[in-house]
Amino acid sequence: MKKTNIPRYKTPRKRKKRTPGESPGIFVVTENALTSKIHLYIYDAENIIKKEFGTIQDVYTAISKNPRKFYWIDIQGIGTQDVLNSVKEKFGINALVMEDIVNTHQRPKFEEFNNYLFVVNRMLELDETLNIRNEQLSMILTEDTLITFQEDYKDILDPIRNRLIHRKQTSIRTLGPSYLLYAIMDIATDQNFNLINRLGDELDLVEDSLYNKAEKSIMYRIQEIKKLMLSIRRIAWPEKDKLNELQKSGSKFIEPEVKVFIRDVADHNTQIIDLLETYRETSTTLMDIYLTIINNKMNEVMKILTVISAIFIPLTFIAGVYGMNFAIQDPVTGKLLHKNMPELYWPNGYVYVWILMIIITIFQIIYFIRKGWFKD
Amino acid sequence: MKKTNIPRYKTPRKRKKRTPGESPGIFVVTENALTSKIHLYIYDAENIIKKEFGTIQDVYTAISKNPRKFYWIDIQGIGTQDVLNSVKEKFGINALVMEDIVNTHQRPKFEEFNNYLFVVNRMLELDETLNIRNEQLSMILTEDTLITFQEDYKDILDPIRNRLIHRKQTSIRTLGPSYLLYAIMDIATDQNFNLINRLGDELDLVEDSLYNKAEKSIMYRIQEIKKLMLSIRRIAWPEKDKLNELQKSGSKFIEPEVKVFIRDVADHNTQIIDLLETYRETSTTLMDIYLTIINNKMNEVMKILTVISAIFIPLTFIAGVYGMNFAIQDPVTGKLLHKNMPELYWPNGYVYVWILMIIITIFQIIYFIRKGWFKD
Amino acid sequence: MKKTNIPRYKTPRKRKKRTPGESPGIFVVTENALTSKIHLYIYDAENIIKKEFGTIQDVYTAISKNPRKFYWIDIQGIGTQDVLNSVKEKFGINALVMEDIVNTHQRPKFEEFNNYLFVVNRMLELDETLNIRNEQLSMILTEDTLITFQEDYKDILDPIRNRLIHRKQTSIRTLGPSYLLYAIMDIATDQNFNLINRLGDELDLVEDSLYNKAEKSIMYRIQEIKKLMLSIRRIAWPEKDKLNELQKSGSKFIEPEVKVFIRDVADHNTQIIDLLETYRETSTTLMDIYLTIINNKMNEVMKILTVISAIFIPLTFIAGVYGMNFAIQDPVTGKLLHKNMPELYWPNGYVYVWILMIIITIFQIIYFIRKGWFKD
Amino acid sequence: MKKTNIPRYKTPRKRKKRTPGESPGIFVVTENALTSKIHLYIYDAENIIKKEFGTIQDVYTAISKNPRKFYWIDIQGIGTQDVLNSVKEKFGINALVMEDIVNTHQRPKFEEFNNYLFVVNRMLELDETLNIRNEQLSMILTEDTLITFQEDYKDILDPIRNRLIHRKQTSIRTLGPSYLLYAIMDIATDQNFNLINRLGDELDLVEDSLYNKAEKSIMYRIQEIKKLMLSIRRIAWPEKDKLNELQKSGSKFIEPEVKVFIRDVADHNTQIIDLLETYRETSTTLMDIYLTIINNKMNEVMKILTVISAIFIPLTFIAGVYGMNFAIQDPVTGKLLHKNMPELYWPNGYVYVWILMIIITIFQIIYFIRKGWFKD
Amino acid sequence: MKKTNIPRYKTPRKRKKRTPGESPGIFVVTENALTSKIHLYIYDAENIIKKEFGTIQDVYTAISKNPRKFYWIDIQGIGTQDVLNSVKEKFGINALVMEDIVNTHQRPKFEEFNNYLFVVNRMLELDETLNIRNEQLSMILTEDTLITFQEDYKDILDPIRNRLIHRKQTSIRTLGPSYLLYAIMDIATDQNFNLINRLGDELDLVEDSLYNKAEKSIMYRIQEIKKLMLSIRRIAWPEKDKLNELQKSGSKFIEPEVKVFIRDVADHNTQIIDLLETYRETSTTLMDIYLTIINNKMNEVMKILTVISAIFIPLTFIAGVYGMNFAIQDPVTGKLLHKNMPELYWPNGYVYVWILMIIITIFQIIYFIRKGWFKD
Repeated sequence: MKKTNIPRYKTPRKRKKRTPGESPGIFVVTENALTSKIHLYIYDAENIIKKEFGTIQDVYTAISKNPRKFYWIDIQGIGTQDVLNSVKEKFGINALVMEDIVNTHQRPKFEEFNNYLFVVNRMLELDETLNIRNEQLSMILTEDTLITFQEDYKDILDPIRNRLIHRKQTSIRTLGPSYLLYAIMDIATDQNFNLINRLGDELDLVEDSLYNKAEKSIMYRIQEIKKLMLSIRRIAWPEKDKLNELQKSGSKFIEPEVKVFIRDVADHNTQIIDLLETYRETSTTLMDIYLTIINNKMNEVMKILTVISAIFIPLTFIAGVYGMNFAIQDPVTGKLLHKNMPELYWPNGYVYVWILMIIITIFQIIYFIRKGWFKD
Repeated sequence: MKKTNIPRYKTPRKRKKRTPGESPGIFVVTENALTSKIHLYIYDAENIIKKEFGTIQDVYTAISKNPRKFYWIDIQGIGTQDVLNSVKEKFGINALVMEDIVNTHQRPKFEEFNNYLFVVNRMLELDETLNIRNEQLSMILTEDTLITFQEDYKDILDPIRNRLIHRKQTSIRTLGPSYLLYAIMDIATDQNFNLINRLGDELDLVEDSLYNKAEKSIMYRIQEIKKLMLSIRRIAWPEKDKLNELQKSGSKFIEPEVKVFIRDVADHNTQIIDLLETYRETSTTLMDIYLTIINNKMNEVMKILTVISAIFIPLTFIAGVYGMNFAIQDPVTGKLLHKNMPELYWPNGYVYVWILMIIITIFQIIYFIRKGWFKD
Repeated sequence: MKKTNIPRYKTPRKRKKRTPGESPGIFVVTENALTSKIHLYIYDAENIIKKEFGTIQDVYTAISKNPRKFYWIDIQGIGTQDVLNSVKEKFGINALVMEDIVNTHQRPKFEEFNNYLFVVNRMLELDETLNIRNEQLSMILTEDTLITFQEDYKDILDPIRNRLIHRKQTSIRTLGPSYLLYAIMDIATDQNFNLINRLGDELDLVEDSLYNKAEKSIMYRIQEIKKLMLSIRRIAWPEKDKLNELQKSGSKFIEPEVKVFIRDVADHNTQIIDLLETYRETSTTLMDIYLTIINNKMNEVMKILTVISAIFIPLTFIAGVYGMNFAIQDPVTGKLLHKNMPELYWPNGYVYVWILMIIITIFQIIYFIRKGWFKD
Repeated sequence: MKKTNIPRYKTPRKRKKRTPGESPGIFVVTENALTSKIHLYIYDAENIIKKEFGTIQDVYTAISKNPRKFYWIDIQGIGTQDVLNSVKEKFGINALVMEDIVNTHQRPKFEEFNNYLFVVNRMLELDETLNIRNEQLSMILTEDTLITFQEDYKDILDPIRNRLIHRKQTSIRTLGPSYLLYAIMDIATDQNFNLINRLGDELDLVEDSLYNKAEKSIMYRIQEIKKLMLSIRRIAWPEKDKLNELQKSGSKFIEPEVKVFIRDVADHNTQIIDLLETYRETSTTLMDIYLTIINNKMNEVMKILTVISAIFIPLTFIAGVYGMNFAIQDPVTGKLLHKNMPELYWPNGYVYVWILMIIITIFQIIYFIRKGWFKD
Repeated sequence: MKKTNIPRYKTPRKRKKRTPGESPGIFVVTENALTSKIHLYIYDAENIIKKEFGTIQDVYTAISKNPRKFYWIDIQGIGTQDVLNSVKEKFGINALVMEDIVNTHQRPKFEEFNNYLFVVNRMLELDETLNIRNEQLSMILTEDTLITFQEDYKDILDPIRNRLIHRKQTSIRTLGPSYLLYAIMDIATDQNFNLINRLGDELDLVEDSLYNKAEKSIMYRIQEIKKLMLSIRRIAWPEKDKLNELQKSGSKFIEPEVKVFIRDVADHNTQIIDLLETYRETSTTLMDIYLTIINNKMNEVMKILTVISAIFIPLTFIAGVYGMNFAIQDPVTGKLLHKNMPELYWPNGYVYVWILMIIITIFQIIYFIRKGWFKD
């Protein structure tokens, strides 16, 4: 059998192989990580400044020149060791947290420290061929600053950047960095929501194909969708815990007004989990239907074989009988052997055989009709 | 294979695709939403006024002219932005709540705010062809007012409207808007109860068909029912949580006397969940039986094929042997070849062959009878 | 295929179809309900009076004439509206409770009110043909009175009535109506216990049949038993919750001494749940064995077909070859065609063919023996 | 099909059928129960007396003669009503507890009373033919006395009796009856542990057989082991709850030093549950493998049938064609019919037919080789 | 069928058979256990001494000579009874704990005592042929000392020993033995993480093979991986509980700074559990795909058989009919029998038969094409 050319989804293996016994807190940027680009947003309800910087030192200087504002340090690419080291020092971040930022295979989580909060988010994107891009977005929240770290330059946060820049006096400008944190989690959840809907549409397509024509490729398609759902589920469940902890957290870094927004994100996430469970059952059901259809087909094949065999094998036997060469006359002595196949010499012998064969066939057909084999 | 023309249930995709990054609280009515019709009921134990209004402003004026009463603002159709905006302003509703009202794919939920309670209900209806209509009914409850929002003009609340208008001095008039809230949840739960019973009857029908005649369409029917149950389950479970929270809520907007009624609704909902679990197991069992019946049928088909083949193939072989043309006499030399098929020249050769064939057949039939293949 | 005449268990559909929007508390007796018969037991440790009454008013009068005693109002048949109305009024029962009493499809439950406790029990009975009778027994307990409502005149409480009447100075007479409540729950649980054992015996029988002869009817039998277990499970689990709540309840209507007895009932109920789980696994296992046996049988059928076909088809082909009519001599020219089937004119041609055929057969039989097809 | 002579495990049905409505606390010894033998151990760290008694009265007298010691009343056989009645009276045991002692189908449990603790243990033993003996051991613990009740004379407690008698000054002599209680539970748990290991070894054997030769008997073997595991699981889970309650209990009858030993037993029990879960998955997996092997075998059978049929059926057809009797010459008129089967009169006709047949066979064999049917 | 030579994973049976009734606390080293080697590390932030000792007495002396430092007693091999006895005495360890140390089949656990903490860790290693080595590492933590016991001389702790010796002034030297405890648990968890990734890679390989060629060996491979995952799962779940208890523990022996590191280990362990669940679903899915592929193959085989049979069996019958020997002329009387097979004497009879056979074949091929049997 040749290789089936079904494109398959493979979980991207980004996870760094751990070197057991490595000292924790000695975080090292991974080889393929992109050089860090740093943007700083200094804003309050009325004014906003956006600037790109090369080092955290410069960012720090810019912040100290603009006191009593809110700050968003937007770091894209986590491949520059210096930048990360400076963040660790300037903001007093725990080495384990820094390790989690560079090892981008963390589950969504929320950790509370005295001087900051640490939040891990995962952003999923699905391309045309159902390949998933699964990026980690780490966030550090202090009283007036949000620091975001992402793996790639390309991201889904542009709508938030636009809202931040253009919408004076709205919540995004007045409620500080914890609202920004919410807005980013909200956008990621909405992204997942659309993704899960996309998979739902795929399942509908598969179902349509299944009812039309149960081809082998459908099975692979279902398994592919199941796998994608599995990888979303691995994010949605810890996300639920994370959002619950965020809601229950008494941290002063989260504005009370923001809590109700976080509840809304949690609600969306619950809907995602709901849909995942529903689609899971659906895909199991589709697989069951597929198997039953195969079984039914086999049944049908067997029936055809049996009907044809049952009808023709006995007839062939009869024909075989009258194809025997028992002699009516001894070739040597010329003696007549009257008991040897006298039917062959009846005037209507051939006609009688046909009648016999037709009767047998009719009986069999009636039998199979009664069994219901010709229906359905 | 032709398309099987089984009507299939499709989950109605009402859910609005989310635009990630959209500012929350900027709620926009969906395109196909119906224009809002507003009815106001002003009532106390003795008197009731029912009036239609065009704007919330007019409703507000009417309310302020009739103080110290209970009010039900019954909004059908959620397609008029102005109406929703006014509700938001006049009653101080959170923008996220307004968003949940217009995006009608919310799970049943209960949210408590300082100045009002927000409850989402789902109303299910099943038409003749087992298509489900799944409508969202959002409710806002304040101390003296209940505001209901529904998607469609047609609804299932008329019995409540009638009771409200005609039954003076009964609970519905004396216990205020929280009783009204209960009555609406109760009617929706009863609706679900009937719906689930309807599906139970369908399952019984399917079971009857299955025992009579295991056709392929039965499988599709079972899957259809399973899907419908899945969509009820997605409502019944969050409904359970909602009702528990409502019971435990210490909000002053819910009359203590109403709590015992809410417990009753919760009880009905638990019965629905019970039935769902039972029917779920039943439908799995039916599917199993169906598969076993198919397997049994295949077995039967195979037996027929085997019996016929086993009997006739050896006989045909014997006939074939005596159809061979080995010559008793060399055509050229005329020499007699006595070892070539002397049976053909025995006076009773033909009779002996028949006897042989009949004996073989009898032995085989006895064998198959012993195996039990002709029973059952 | 004809209808299989397997008797099937059908869940009795007693549940009244709900009319959504119906005012709660306007309870109406169902059409087929039996007329109510009322018996009153007035008792203390020493004396007991048993009397039948026509109305609750008379019962009430009798009670007020015999103060400082315990009372059991035993109502059989819940079809007399007047009786129920009077109970509601005289004892101040909530309208929802009365509704639960007449709509006899409640799950086992326990509800606590200020002036009484409400307990729903279900009594199961199984007749010879495995039909289940599932009756509701509702009980209201106050400080000195127990009111029981049952659907049918025939019941399982006679042993309790006898103990109450004849056993002076025992717990049933000294511990008041809460002990009576316990005794009734205990009898119902023991009934369920016996019923579940009965089903266990059925499963054993099925298992024996299965090992002897795997007939199709076994499958239906297993499904039937599974269904019955499902209906017991739907009672046993809420019963567990009910008994827990009863144990934890701080109500003064339950004598402290009775609590230890209720724990004993809860213990029995847990054993029932245990057995249910065990039997559930057993029935699943039996179904699996059944399926495997079918598969094995199919395999055996296929082997027979294959062995016979594999042996005779090649032989028949050989016979066919020598039945061909290739001429050794041109009929027209008389020219000898030496290459046409010279075997037919060999002196030992026929013998050689038989030897060839026997060798082929022996090789095949050895092959199939090596494959192990003739064993097992 | 003949009865398969697989020895099967049957759950011993010791459970007494309950007579519903029976007064609780009127406990009656079961018919087959053995006469009670009573041994009394009076001990402290230094001295120990062991004596057999006929009545509890005598035991009581012996105890009162030896004050300020520890006592173990070891009752084997629970068939003497008098003995049990005396225990009930002398030690003030609740009637329900006595009932649990004589009805030996209780789950492991722990019940706390004011004047004593009640513990039910189950002891499992497995004989050579995998039959399980499942005995109940009930224990009553007071401040200075442990009373044990067991069904049989033969038991597994001899190692404890020996340690008690011979090990002066060790925990078993100094820590009082609660340590004795622990020691008995520990021995029963170790027994279960060995039993579960025995089943694990059986599973390994089954797995070996399965990989060697997938016979039908393997399926029965797996089911048997599954059933045995089910019956251990029914003990291990309530045992877990019991041990937790014992650990959390604040009863003064349990020495604080003994708590750490009980934690150890609980730990062993958890290991048992762990192993049970593992073996459960393993047995499911083995069943799956068995089914797959059957399927694969069927596939192989089908392939053989198909290869042989596919090769010989067309060849037989060709032979059949040239076995037809179309005449080259009209027997009456003698007219030559040149179009009738001229092949038969070609000088090389027969050779050509063989060449044709060989070519067809070669093509088919190549086709099947490409399909990979001859591999594996 | 011959034995399939698939290498199989067998759970190593290290568990010592328990002798029920054995006195707890009389711990005895197992027979095959290795002689104990003892290394002592005496360290503080600046200095470190490493020395090998023969007896615990010597270790104790060395410790008392170097007060106010941290100590790690690293015991490799647990086969010297004297060493263990001395540890028990010198450090006041409970006998049950000592028993757990020598019976190396404990689940991961954490037990808190007044004077020390007891932690059981399991270290997994996988060799080339997927054989797992599952070693127990027991640890006792007091205020200033960590004692580790391992079964083997070879271990995975060398990176930690190196860090301890060479990294002055880092956490491992300043945070005391509780940090050392963390470091060891961290290394074991990382080891498991790599192991689980290895299994994930195996699953990917299996999946690739499956899509290329569904051979029987794949099934065995999947089962093998499943078994390995089962044995990791048996460690990862209790490990989770253990780490939670460690985090919640208020013991003074665990430095507060170390808690955040333990949270990190717990986080890694949760990722392991996540992966296990994902791979579990994946392996189930692979098994399903395998079964479906087998089914599909069977279907294909059946189709080939049916197509060939359906086409050739009727043709063979026709050939058989015209192979019959009905005589056109009575051999004795010479009378012409015109009704006997006149087709044989038609001038184009043979041609007509071929045309008939070709038409039948064409119709059948069209039929099978329409059925879609030649596609896919």
